[in-house]
Amino acid sequence: METVKTMTANPLSAAVHWNDQGLVPAIAQDWQTGEVLMMAWMNPESLALTVAEGRAIYWSRSRQALWRKGESSGNVQLLKELRLDCDGDTLLLRVEQVGDIACHTGRRRCFYQCWQDDNWQVTDEILKSPDELYGPPQ
Amino acid sequence: METVKTMTANPLSAAVHWNDQGLVPAIAQDWQTGEVLMMAWMNPESLALTVAEGRAIYWSRSRQALWRKGESSGNVQLLKELRLDCDGDTLLLRVEQVGDIACHTGRRRCFYQCWQDDNWQVTDEILKSPDELYGPPQ
Repeated sequence: METVKTMTANPLSAAVHWNDQGLVPAIAQDWQTGEVLMMAWMNPESLALTVAEGRAIYWSRSRQALWRKGESSGNVQLLKELRLDCDGDTLLLRVEQVGDIACHTGRRRCFYQCWQDDNWQVTDEILKSPDELYGPPQ
Repeated sequence: METVKTMTANPLSAAVHWNDQGLVPAIAQDWQTGEVLMMAWMNPESLALTVAEGRAIYWSRSRQALWRKGESSGNVQLLKELRLDCDGDTLLLRVEQVGDIACHTGRRRCFYQCWQDDNWQVTDEILKSPDELYGPPQ
């Protein structure tokens, strides 16, 4: 707990309005194409580590653990720019997406469903199968 | 309540994983420049109205009411594309930002603070004062 307290006193974390779970949404955008790749969550520790290591490190709500994006697949996100919004409750990361795949389904981005003709249509192709990305299921 | 139930049965809402407050984050991105303008929240009704009216309509958590973006300032967001992510828990709207101002501070986008030199620096200028946007405080 001491670590988190120290980090919250840091201006990096102090300006952020953490929600009642101590988290903030973080949008990852390709720094060159402007494509929005994904949205995930950060806690004070993951935000501090993201800045310190220069790569996106999120907080996994399902695993309740730090999520070093790309640690299994190698598709890390190198931090190029970090922004905060007017209310201090959303972060925007401009990143270099190594491997050109941000989504666990093997697509370039997570936003691969588009509302068209009264249905959600899959518009983006799978570039690499999850088996290739993460190895076959154990 | 009946209205919301009907909408949830609609494929538009059924694919969305609403959080425990019945909301989902919605990212607004300029459809031409790719700039990420803001992030807000939607409930099933605001999502259905966004599609029906072809403009961004959010749910204001502070006011607990529908928030027709631009209703006071005129700076509405015309919907060009609506996307959903792999987990169904984040929406991405590509919009035409009328008036070129998305932020209530009078800046083009809400993400006007950038982490530089160990501090959050304001990098974007105010294009129009809030008084001009909304009229002087009552």
